[in-house]
Parts: sequence; structure tokens; C-alpha cells
Amino acid sequence: MSEMSNAVWAKGAAYIDGRYMPVEQAAIPITDWGYRRSDATYDVVGVWDGAFFRLEDHLRRFRSSMRGLRLDPPESDDDIRQVLIECVRRSGLRHAYVAMDCLRGMPKPGLVRHPVNCRNYLAVFAIPWVWVVSPDVQDRGAHLIIARTPRIAAASIDPRIKNFHWGDLTSGLFEAHDRGADNCVLLDADGFVTEGPGFNVFAVIEGQVVTPDRGALEGITRLSILELCADLAIPCTIRPLPAAEFADADEIFLATTAGGVMPVSRIDGRILGNDRPGPLSARLQQQFWAKRAAGWHATPINY
Amino acid sequence: MSEMSNAVWAKGAAYIDGRYMPVEQAAIPITDWGYRRSDATYDVVGVWDGAFFRLEDHLRRFRSSMRGLRLDPPESDDDIRQVLIECVRRSGLRHAYVAMDCLRGMPKPGLVRHPVNCRNYLAVFAIPWVWVVSPDVQDRGAHLIIARTPRIAAASIDPRIKNFHWGDLTSGLFEAHDRGADNCVLLDADGFVTEGPGFNVFAVIEGQVVTPDRGALEGITRLSILELCADLAIPCTIRPLPAAEFADADEIFLATTAGGVMPVSRIDGRILGNDRPGPLSARLQQQFWAKRAAGWHATPINY
Repeated sequence: MSEMSNAVWAKGAAYIDGRYMPVEQAAIPITDWGYRRSDATYDVVGVWDGAFFRLEDHLRRFRSSMRGLRLDPPESDDDIRQVLIECVRRSGLRHAYVAMDCLRGMPKPGLVRHPVNCRNYLAVFAIPWVWVVSPDVQDRGAHLIIARTPRIAAASIDPRIKNFHWGDLTSGLFEAHDRGADNCVLLDADGFVTEGPGFNVFAVIEGQVVTPDRGALEGITRLSILELCADLAIPCTIRPLPAAEFADADEIFLATTAGGVMPVSRIDGRILGNDRPGPLSARLQQQFWAKRAAGWHATPINY
Repeated sequence: MSEMSNAVWAKGAAYIDGRYMPVEQAAIPITDWGYRRSDATYDVVGVWDGAFFRLEDHLRRFRSSMRGLRLDPPESDDDIRQVLIECVRRSGLRHAYVAMDCLRGMPKPGLVRHPVNCRNYLAVFAIPWVWVVSPDVQDRGAHLIIARTPRIAAASIDPRIKNFHWGDLTSGLFEAHDRGADNCVLLDADGFVTEGPGFNVFAVIEGQVVTPDRGALEGITRLSILELCADLAIPCTIRPLPAAEFADADEIFLATTAGGVMPVSRIDGRILGNDRPGPLSARLQQQFWAKRAAGWHATPINY
């Protein structure tokens, strides 16, 4: 490839419904129900230092999400794995954010305008690594608020099926901005902690790690933290987490593919510990990246 | 224009962020938060027989929705009006479905990835008229079900701000399909009727027209029906509508820009009246289109 061509692909590579292209050209029709009805599911897998993290877990969850929404693209899981690899390979990126979407599409001409009559399709892209919380904010610890906007109820939209219904999370981000904070966590209608925009939340309470049992995605980084806690013999519980208990926690941290373990230093203006990442959060964060560097759950890419 | 060029534009004309194009080329970046976070609002105005219906009401509601989500595109209301007209004019369509979207966009490079740091933009398209319920189904009356999936709560997503958070409505459409029905209506968590996918609902109960006071868009066709009822001295009430009362109504009809007044002949398998549109529904439907033909709330387009 020419240098100019390399530069275009290095911004990201995409695949939409059978065709590869630079990410700058990757677009979906404005009339597509994947956009107009947010009728789509997705997953995001990270590439760090030239290797996917927990690729098979992401493929498995993506297929489960598609089944949950009755989405059935032409590609098999083996096909999707190859597309993910090929997008990263074409981009040449060694640290990448790799998204896979399945969209409902549009009703076939002549058929009733109903989701059963749409041709579903796959869209994938690899772009340079994205930090949900920037590294400088991670270093001082994120400032979090508990938003007043409640999370969309699980009975209406299943949070275990990764989806783009983010209006409540966006409202929460505006609340955080208005209150001078970095980010937010949302409660369910009963006042229990659920999740934030793109991450799971954890509290450290009397030496125990606690993460919500409801209203949240079953995150793959969350799963990794459960494994880390087991390795380090740190007690960890998945249970209902009332807002008051969360706001009074000893430590708080967040977890996501696009960021790993991300410490919090303030909640609703209250300073946690010494206004810096708590010791257990910092230890889990350090351990997470040390294990990643050592090839934990890694699938190296042949560029 | 050449005949080929005419044919391309006749499928629809679009405008995205300052540029006009045939609708087939109108697409949004796969990385745009308007899609990836369903962070957008929209409105739809109809063109029938070469004239917009209630254009100013739609422009007013669209601006109000944008304000509600803190979206601020470069275009003024006067600009948007001109873009709507120009899209219809370029398409040459005399019966058109005209959508206006405002999307969040993407964070500007170098700034924190937060919705406050995005450049919002406008997207408009005019395509051939769309029937939410096809004319043959309208003639026999639509078969409706009350879905088990509850409508997303207003506290999480305000239904008065037109949005693409349709996952609950899509679930309802699958329920309808599985039960052999055409369409669905959703209840809120307290068991009150809200709305269906893209339409308001009305019940006729002992000679009174009733429409829900909660959980629904304040539809502009709904407003037109309130006006029609006043004209015809038909009592009409906006109030809580429990599911049981709705299921037991004498008549049911639906209202939307993309269809006007649409009668229902079955609810949850129960046959209403003689399995055909009810007399009051049919009268309102007839009156609605008669007044439309006579130029009611019309803004003619200069093609």
C-alpha cells in the first residue's frame, strides 16, 4: 500500500455487509432501522499490544445478544472472527477498539413493514484504542455522581443484551457535567445501583468487592475482575447494591473493555480516602494490566 | 435533469449537514453517537397532494425536542423549513414522508469524549409516502394486541421528545407477529395504555373518544383528531386509560402522520363490532381526509 493509503487505513478499517473499507467511509443508510429504531445489538472487543482480549467470550455474548433480538446476519461466528481479525490487520493498529454491530436493516420491498421482513447485516470496525475514562483522570481517580435519571427498566430493554438505548445514560452525563463531575452511575426505579455509560461499577465495602446483580450488562471486564479477585483471595459478591451503601463505600472503581479497571476518587462530591485511587482498586488495576501484558486470555493477531 | 437523474431523485432526496443528495446516498457515520448512543431526536411531517400538513406545528415540536436534549444544529427554524421544502422539491414527490433528524455527532478531536463536546447536525429526507398501517389493513381494520413488554418509563426517556428508543416497541411488534396480529400497543408499568410503534391510540367508550394522558408522544395527528372531535361535537377526553377498559372499548383507532386515522377491528383476538372499522372511527377517518383534501392546515409546495 502507498503511504497515503496506509494513513487512511490507520484511522480505522471497517466491514459492512460483505465489504471492507476505511472507517471514514463506513456509514449506514439514514433510513435503516438499526438507526431509526435503534434496532441493533453490538459488542466491543479490545486489542492491546497486538492481541485480542477474551475474543471468544465477546463472540459468544454477541451471538447471544443477536439471538435475544432475533437478529440473524449471514455471517457465522467463524466468519465474524475472521472479519474482526481482518479489520485490525488492515488498520495495522496494535491497540484498537473493535466494534461488531448487527443491524435490523430495512423491510424487503413489497413486504409488510415489520422487523420479521428485514435482512439483518453485520458491521465491524477497528479504530485506535478508546479510553472511556482518560488516563489522566484514571490517575487522579474519576469524579462520579449518582444521576437522578433512572436507568431504563430491564423489563423494557434487557441490559444484558448490549444496545444503543443510551438516552438515560446521556442525561446522566449531562447531570455529571452540570455538577462538575466526570461521569455518572444510574439507579433502577427501586434505588439500586445499575451501571454507567459503558461500564460496570464496583464498590469496596469493608474489604469486600461488591458489584450489582441487576440492571447491568454482564461485562467481560467485570468477569475478569471476578477472576482476579479469586486469584488474589479478595472476597467478591454480586448482590443488590443500594444507592446509600454505594455512596458510603470505602472505594469505588469502574470496569469496561475500553479502559480496564478505572478507579474513582469522588462520589457525589464526597472524597473517597485521600482523593486518589483506593489501595484495593489500584492493586486490581495494576494486576489487570500486568496479567494482560503477560498474555492473559490473549489471542495474538498475525499482522 | 436527465431521466436517469430524475429517477434517482424520485426515490427520495436528502440533506445532511449542509449538503443535498439522493436519499440512496444519505448515510451517517457508523461511529456517530446519533447511531451508537441513539443520541438524536427527529420529527416527521407528511406531504399529501403537494402540500405539507401542519408544517409549523412539526417545526415547533422538533425545536422543542432538540432543546430538551440540548441539541443545537447550525440551522435556524427558517433554514430547516427551507431544507424540508427543497428536499420535497428535488424529489418531485407529491405524497411524501419527510423526516428531520438532529444527531449529536461525535466529540471534537482533542476534547473529552462527552456529549457537550460534539458538533450537532441536521439530517432531512423526503421519500415516497409511507403507510404505518397499509391501506388494505386499514380497510378491514387492524388487528392489535396489548404487548407484555412495558413501555420504557417516561422518567428514563421522555416520550414527548420524539426518539429512536424503539426496542420495547420492536419487542411488541414481534409479540404481535407471534400472535398473528398486525400491530401492538404498550402499557406503562402501572398498566395504563401508552402508545404503539409510531402512533397514538384512541378508544371509543360509550360515545366518548378517549386517548391516554401519559407515556405517549403528543402527536400532531392526535391534536388534529381533538380538533375534529370539537368540530363534530364528539366528546373527547385525555385521561388515564387502564388496559382492561381499553380492551373492552366499543371502538379503537390509531393516529399517526404516516397514516392519519387508522381503524382497529380486533384487540387481543376479540372482534370489535362487526369485525370492520367502527362507525365513529370511520367517520373521523373520512372527515380527516376530506378536510385534508380541502386544504386543512396545508402548506402548498412550489415544485
